[in-house]
Amino acid sequence: MITVISGTNRQDSKTRAIVGLYVDLLKAKGVAYQILDLVYLPEDFTIKALYDYTGKHEEFNKLSALIRNSDKFVFIVPEYNGSFPGVLKTFIDGLDYPYTFKDKKAALVGVSSGMQGGLLALSHLTDIFNYLGMHVLAQKVKLAFISKNFDGKLLTNQLYNELLEQQAESFIKF
Amino acid sequence: MITVISGTNRQDSKTRAIVGLYVDLLKAKGVAYQILDLVYLPEDFTIKALYDYTGKHEEFNKLSALIRNSDKFVFIVPEYNGSFPGVLKTFIDGLDYPYTFKDKKAALVGVSSGMQGGLLALSHLTDIFNYLGMHVLAQKVKLAFISKNFDGKLLTNQLYNELLEQQAESFIKF
Amino acid sequence: MITVISGTNRQDSKTRAIVGLYVDLLKAKGVAYQILDLVYLPEDFTIKALYDYTGKHEEFNKLSALIRNSDKFVFIVPEYNGSFPGVLKTFIDGLDYPYTFKDKKAALVGVSSGMQGGLLALSHLTDIFNYLGMHVLAQKVKLAFISKNFDGKLLTNQLYNELLEQQAESFIKF
Amino acid sequence: MITVISGTNRQDSKTRAIVGLYVDLLKAKGVAYQILDLVYLPEDFTIKALYDYTGKHEEFNKLSALIRNSDKFVFIVPEYNGSFPGVLKTFIDGLDYPYTFKDKKAALVGVSSGMQGGLLALSHLTDIFNYLGMHVLAQKVKLAFISKNFDGKLLTNQLYNELLEQQAESFIKF
Repeated sequence: MITVISGTNRQDSKTRAIVGLYVDLLKAKGVAYQILDLVYLPEDFTIKALYDYTGKHEEFNKLSALIRNSDKFVFIVPEYNGSFPGVLKTFIDGLDYPYTFKDKKAALVGVSSGMQGGLLALSHLTDIFNYLGMHVLAQKVKLAFISKNFDGKLLTNQLYNELLEQQAESFIKF
Repeated sequence: MITVISGTNRQDSKTRAIVGLYVDLLKAKGVAYQILDLVYLPEDFTIKALYDYTGKHEEFNKLSALIRNSDKFVFIVPEYNGSFPGVLKTFIDGLDYPYTFKDKKAALVGVSSGMQGGLLALSHLTDIFNYLGMHVLAQKVKLAFISKNFDGKLLTNQLYNELLEQQAESFIKF
Repeated sequence: MITVISGTNRQDSKTRAIVGLYVDLLKAKGVAYQILDLVYLPEDFTIKALYDYTGKHEEFNKLSALIRNSDKFVFIVPEYNGSFPGVLKTFIDGLDYPYTFKDKKAALVGVSSGMQGGLLALSHLTDIFNYLGMHVLAQKVKLAFISKNFDGKLLTNQLYNELLEQQAESFIKF
Repeated sequence: MITVISGTNRQDSKTRAIVGLYVDLLKAKGVAYQILDLVYLPEDFTIKALYDYTGKHEEFNKLSALIRNSDKFVFIVPEYNGSFPGVLKTFIDGLDYPYTFKDKKAALVGVSSGMQGGLLALSHLTDIFNYLGMHVLAQKVKLAFISKNFDGKLLTNQLYNELLEQQAESFIKF
C-alpha cells in the first residue's frame, strides 16, 4: 500500500488536488493506496503532540498511524518560502523517532507558483528522509508555474502528466 | 539592534539557554538586543496565523513585530530530524511575504545532541534566507554533542565559547 | 576591484559571454574589475597544481593570483549534471587553504540550458564558500533556458538583464 | 557486481585505504566487485576528455567503462573544502549524459579530517546522482576525524567498522 501525503494544512490547496490526480494514477494501475492529508492536523499539535507529548494526542495519532502502517510514501509538497511547508516538518517532528521511516521508501513531487518547482524543498526533504533511514526515489517531479499548468481539475501541461506517470511506474517497482 | 531567536517551542530547551549566553555576549559588547522566543508561539498558530489569516492573529503578531522592527538576527537552531525544527519554518511561513527579511542579515548557530551540530539545518536555512533576500554570515557555529559540552548554565567546551565570541564580533561588523 | 569568474574551461561558452555582459555592467557603473577565465586552466593542473604541488604550478599561480589580489568575486556558473562544473571546484581545491576566501564576498549567477538555472549549483557553492569563510550575496541570479534567452551577444529576456543589473548594484554595496 | 570508487586523484590517500577495507567487506560476503581509482585519471582529462572530446580519450575511457559495465557503486569520498573533490565531479562531467547512471544505485561514504565527516559532500552528491536518475542508499557513513580513527591499515573506531558493515549489508539488498 502506498500512502499519498498532501504536504500542507492549507484549505482547498492545489497540492490536495494533485494528490487526487496521483491517486487516480495508482488506482488505474491497481495499486492499493491511502491518503494522508495534513489539513487534518489538529490546531494545537505544535504543542500538544510534540516533545513530552509525543504519541499522546489522539487526533494526531490517527494521522501518524497512516505513516506507521505503510512502507511507501508519495509526498506532494508545495514550495513555501523556497523550501517545504513548516507544518510538514513539524508533523515529522511529532512522529516517533528513530524507527518511523527506517528502511521505508519515498517519492517526491514539488508544486510551485514560481519557476523552482520545489527543487530545494525536495533536496532538503531528501536530506531529512535519508537521515531518518528512508530511501528516496531518484526521479523527483517538479511542477513549476502551477497556476499556468493546472486548470483546477487537470494538469494541462502534458509533460507534467507524463512525468507523474513515469514516477508512479518507477516507484511501484522501487 | 540584534534580535536573538530561540528556534524551538520546546519548554526549557538547551537552545533557550544558549540564547541567554549569546545575549550576555552582546551585552558585554554594548550592543542593543531583544529576544524572540518561539516558546511563545500561540497554540493555534498553524491554522489561525497562516494563509488567509496572515497578520490577523494578535498574539502571533507580537512575535512577528520583533522581526519587522529589526534588521539583524541571530538564529539559535536545534537540530530536529537532521534539519531545523518545523515550528521555526512554520513561524517564517506566517510572516509577510516578500519583504520581511529582504536586505536584512542573519547569523546562524546550530545545536545538536549528535555529531552534526545542525550542519544541514543551517545549510537548509541559508537556502531559505537567501531566497527571501537575507544575507547570511559565512561563519556558522555548530554546537555538536551539546549534552557533553553544556552543564546547564555554561558551555564547558572553551572552543565553543570562542566560536560564539568570534561570530558575534563578525556579525556586529557584517 | 571585482573579479568576474567564468566558471568553466569549455571553449567559447555562453558562460564566458555572460561574463562579458557582466563586465559591461560594472564598467557602466565605473567599478574596477578583472576577469578570471577558467579556460586558461593548464591541462595538467589536476595533478601538477594540487596536494603536494599546491602553489608550485606557475601557470596555475597566475590564475590564483587573481583570487588573492581581490576581495569581491562574481561567479558565473554553468550547470553541469545538476550542480557546478567539476573544474571550478578543482580550481578551488588547488588554492591555498584556509585563508584564500576568508572574509571576502561573492555574488553568484547560474546558467543552464534547462529549467533549474543552476539553483542547486548555487546552493552547493554557497555551502562551500560559507565553509571557507566567504559571505555570499543573498540575491542569486538564475539564467534558465539560456539558449532561448541569449542570442549569442545579448540576453533577449529583459527580466534577466534587470536581475543582473540589480544584483550588480547590490553587490557593489555589499 | 559492485564498483567501489576511490573519489580522489591524490596519491596514497586514506580514501584509497578505506576502499581496500570496503572491498574486504564485500569479499567476505562473497560479492563480486571491481575498483575504480581516480588516481588513474589522465593528467589532461579536464581538456581532452570533456565537452567535444567526450568519449574520445582512450585512457579515460578505461575508467568510464567501469561505470558503464556495472549497476551498483560505492563512492568513498574525502571532504575537500566542505564538499566532494572537484576531480570526482569533473570525472562525472566527462561521462556520457544522460544514461550513464540512470536507474542505477549508489552508496556513499564520507571521509574527513575534521568533524563533518563529509556530510555536505554526500548531500551535494545525492542531489547530483538523483538528478542523473541514480538512487542513493539512505544510510550514508560519515568517517569524521579520520586521522584519529584510522591507523594506516585499519579503522580503530569500532563504531566505524560496524557502520560500514551495516551499510554494505543494506546495499547488497538495495
